[in-house]
Amino acid sequence: MTDDRDTPAPRDVHEEVMEATYRALCDNGFASLTMQDIADEAGKSTSLLHYHYDTKRNLLVSFLAYLLEGFEEKFEETEGESPDERLRTLVDRLLPDDDDDDDEYARFGRALMELRMRAPYEDAYREQLQTNMRTLRDRFAAVIREGVETGTFREVDPERTARLLLDALDGARSAHVTLGDDDAPEEIAAALDEFVLSSILRADAEADDE
Amino acid sequence: MTDDRDTPAPRDVHEEVMEATYRALCDNGFASLTMQDIADEAGKSTSLLHYHYDTKRNLLVSFLAYLLEGFEEKFEETEGESPDERLRTLVDRLLPDDDDDDDEYARFGRALMELRMRAPYEDAYREQLQTNMRTLRDRFAAVIREGVETGTFREVDPERTARLLLDALDGARSAHVTLGDDDAPEEIAAALDEFVLSSILRADAEADDE
Repeated sequence: MTDDRDTPAPRDVHEEVMEATYRALCDNGFASLTMQDIADEAGKSTSLLHYHYDTKRNLLVSFLAYLLEGFEEKFEETEGESPDERLRTLVDRLLPDDDDDDDEYARFGRALMELRMRAPYEDAYREQLQTNMRTLRDRFAAVIREGVETGTFREVDPERTARLLLDALDGARSAHVTLGDDDAPEEIAAALDEFVLSSILRADAEADDE
Repeated sequence: MTDDRDTPAPRDVHEEVMEATYRALCDNGFASLTMQDIADEAGKSTSLLHYHYDTKRNLLVSFLAYLLEGFEEKFEETEGESPDERLRTLVDRLLPDDDDDDDEYARFGRALMELRMRAPYEDAYREQLQTNMRTLRDRFAAVIREGVETGTFREVDPERTARLLLDALDGARSAHVTLGDDDAPEEIAAALDEFVLSSILRADAEADDE
């Protein structure tokens, strides 16, 4: 996945740097983050970081790609599940889980939003964030399409349904991490279950048709 | 609405300053906005702004309250409409309309997101934004509750339904203004129509019940 870099970090080094970037973003936010912060977290030198990632911007683009890879791995793990189970697993994946440190979740969420606020001015961030967003939507839509084709789900537009799920999760996350709305994740999960996940199950559609 | 300030601006001055603040936010964003920028837009002195609003932070809190007042006025205008029409009008109100200058809409949307990113660190912003969010949700929920009580809508949880509408609109706006996803507003409008606005109409519920 990282072969397009000139001097890619070995896999284990890359993993360490990415985990260090996660911690540094939680601790420092995005705006004031330095290569030194990441180097300190990783126990590496800044020159090693520059050797493998060139600039801080490139490192953060790699980090966004790393987050996407994490999602893709999770997506592949759900391959044996039914479309309904799969979609629920993927939605859960985008919600904080009970084990999450709520404060850390909020700090990381805010750092990612700060990075995203830079997207209009930084092509590299915007392009990678667009790729992440599009890929998530494509994966969600593929599961929904499979469910429609196999008769698990009623006839819905897979792209549009995927967008509603992702935009609603994004809005709730934003309310949670910027305004301290702690009920947001649980409430949006319940709303999406009621209005989307349960409502697209074919059983409902059949009742409508009869 | 501004009586709680020590030296409130006369209504016409307040209106001019608020409109100037809107233009200054569009032109400068939030991060680098100064009182001088707002004064220049308003054709007033910074000392007049300080006299009426004390600090830039207080002025921006007044601006957030002004945005809410605009929504409240719109809400009152819809009082004669049916719950279904009303809810659609309110959703439309939160989407860009065809007359909007798309670039201006995006610039203002980004400035508001920047301000919101400060909410975790500035009590005054957070409290006013929480008030705005809660009021919007309350107004949406009140219309939904009325629709349920009068039989226009099926039995849905008004708060939860309101949250889904608002969070989805917020997520789509964010995709639009930060990632340049120009299809986002139209697509989320279609998704909310299908999965919420049309699906809660009692006619559907009756088909389910029979």
